[in-house]
Amino acid sequence: MHRVVESVGEDVDEVSEGDVVIPTFMSVCGECADCISKKSNLCSKYPFKICPWMPRYETSRFTDLKGQVLYHFIFVSSFSEYTVVDVCNVTKIDPAVPPNRACLLSCGISTGFGAAWKTAEVEKGSTVAIFGLGSIGLAVAEGARLCGAARIIGVDINPNKFEFGKKFGVTDFVNAANCGSKSVSQVINEMSGGGADYCFECVGLASLVHEAYACCRKGWGKTIVVGVDKPGSKLSLSSFEVLHSGKKLMGSLFGGLKAKTDIPILLARYMNKELQLDEFVTHELQFEDINKAFDLLIEGECLRCVIWMQK
Amino acid sequence: MHRVVESVGEDVDEVSEGDVVIPTFMSVCGECADCISKKSNLCSKYPFKICPWMPRYETSRFTDLKGQVLYHFIFVSSFSEYTVVDVCNVTKIDPAVPPNRACLLSCGISTGFGAAWKTAEVEKGSTVAIFGLGSIGLAVAEGARLCGAARIIGVDINPNKFEFGKKFGVTDFVNAANCGSKSVSQVINEMSGGGADYCFECVGLASLVHEAYACCRKGWGKTIVVGVDKPGSKLSLSSFEVLHSGKKLMGSLFGGLKAKTDIPILLARYMNKELQLDEFVTHELQFEDINKAFDLLIEGECLRCVIWMQK
Repeated sequence: MHRVVESVGEDVDEVSEGDVVIPTFMSVCGECADCISKKSNLCSKYPFKICPWMPRYETSRFTDLKGQVLYHFIFVSSFSEYTVVDVCNVTKIDPAVPPNRACLLSCGISTGFGAAWKTAEVEKGSTVAIFGLGSIGLAVAEGARLCGAARIIGVDINPNKFEFGKKFGVTDFVNAANCGSKSVSQVINEMSGGGADYCFECVGLASLVHEAYACCRKGWGKTIVVGVDKPGSKLSLSSFEVLHSGKKLMGSLFGGLKAKTDIPILLARYMNKELQLDEFVTHELQFEDINKAFDLLIEGECLRCVIWMQK
Repeated sequence: MHRVVESVGEDVDEVSEGDVVIPTFMSVCGECADCISKKSNLCSKYPFKICPWMPRYETSRFTDLKGQVLYHFIFVSSFSEYTVVDVCNVTKIDPAVPPNRACLLSCGISTGFGAAWKTAEVEKGSTVAIFGLGSIGLAVAEGARLCGAARIIGVDINPNKFEFGKKFGVTDFVNAANCGSKSVSQVINEMSGGGADYCFECVGLASLVHEAYACCRKGWGKTIVVGVDKPGSKLSLSSFEVLHSGKKLMGSLFGGLKAKTDIPILLARYMNKELQLDEFVTHELQFEDINKAFDLLIEGECLRCVIWMQK
């Protein structure tokens, strides 16, 4: 999502009319213990939640042309030509970045890239395994590639994803639907000589987190949960293995990024031709065709489909 | 455990007759990827396991006076006046360290101290919660104290443990048997204003790991499993919480320490009067009274009971 500021409230001085911004569902109040800390991106003042209001006053401030209240969705309410967003949920960006590239940083690509860069802190020369090569998994690959990973193993049940993956540094492909009598974790343990240094689950299945953990290198391996599973789902780990394996389990929400500071860094790396964004955009559609965009997503036909809000 | 080398095999040059050593169940071959890496203490060549043999050739090399084979226990076989140990399982130490202090570093105190120091990397000014104030939990406190933790919350069902705890920097005590309608994690979340930065489970109960994770600070909190649960026990975590909380789960075997390099550091800190060891030794007994030592342990009467092998 990429927006131009139309007007600002009276106490807002961080952005002004005409500024180009990226709204994000993750708030940055800039004042709480988490925003001040370098270690957290989970703003305590306005924590992420699914609710119909803006975070600050729990009101809408958003109506249709007849004055009827419009409800919000995760603080950004992006499927609309105009929206009302708290200043904690916008990041001012360089207007030189093309809007159909900048918009990618609003969520998915940031999440994947940040999971490798900030949460896992992928080291140069390391081996990475990525479960699920959708846009988020591919963004993990792109993050791992830029961190200098030597080997990036992509796992998917759609072999076409390997072709996409190669563009983002994926060096090896495991077809999870075609492992014979072996589990995916066995295959990865064998091909990596004892497991990957970093395993990312980007599908949203507890069973895949278990597989990821099982092929994570003992001694120092990190398993990073990126995918969103169904509410109530549980991860079940062997107490013995957690104690004896030296492996770490962690989650990555919005890639551990702090939107206001990290999105500009990523966009600068794009403008500097380091970070690849163009390759994520397989389709661009007008707002009136938004349902077609959803169809493409469901059919697995697209990576990112940019919606142009105005012709 | 603390030993003087009586003789060495023909290919051994790391130690010689008369050297003072500490045997450890964790091997250090010095050559494998884990021993070379700074990030792992889990030697790949001779991994820890419970077996009746020495690690290198899977033989005993240990007999009684009649020549009958004696079986080993976790590579050190310490309840014996003499033992046979692989050079990978001994650390040469400064002979000036009193044997009834040096022996503490062979396992428990190293494990607890290292869990705070190496595995968790406790930061200055942080808040720590320790579930279980036995010797290992108290050694975690000692590690956290020396790392500069500002607040150390001890959890136990025996209120006498708080008195022991104070010696090692425990500042607050939670009696887990006396939390009324609240869970321990609720109590700790309230008293710490959102959770402890580091939570250590030192009892060996999956349910306590869950409690520890539940009162670990969102955004950056680490839950460290130190206690050994029953074989087959499972940790069950909410997939949503792992993803959204920013908390990390990890285990700590032998405190993440590399015996040959880290034990001498700890002993130097003891000799330098930084690290407290004297306070752990509540009892000292002769070898012939070893069963009394076990009774003391089971009754919760002692922290560490040193067994003198020779009068």
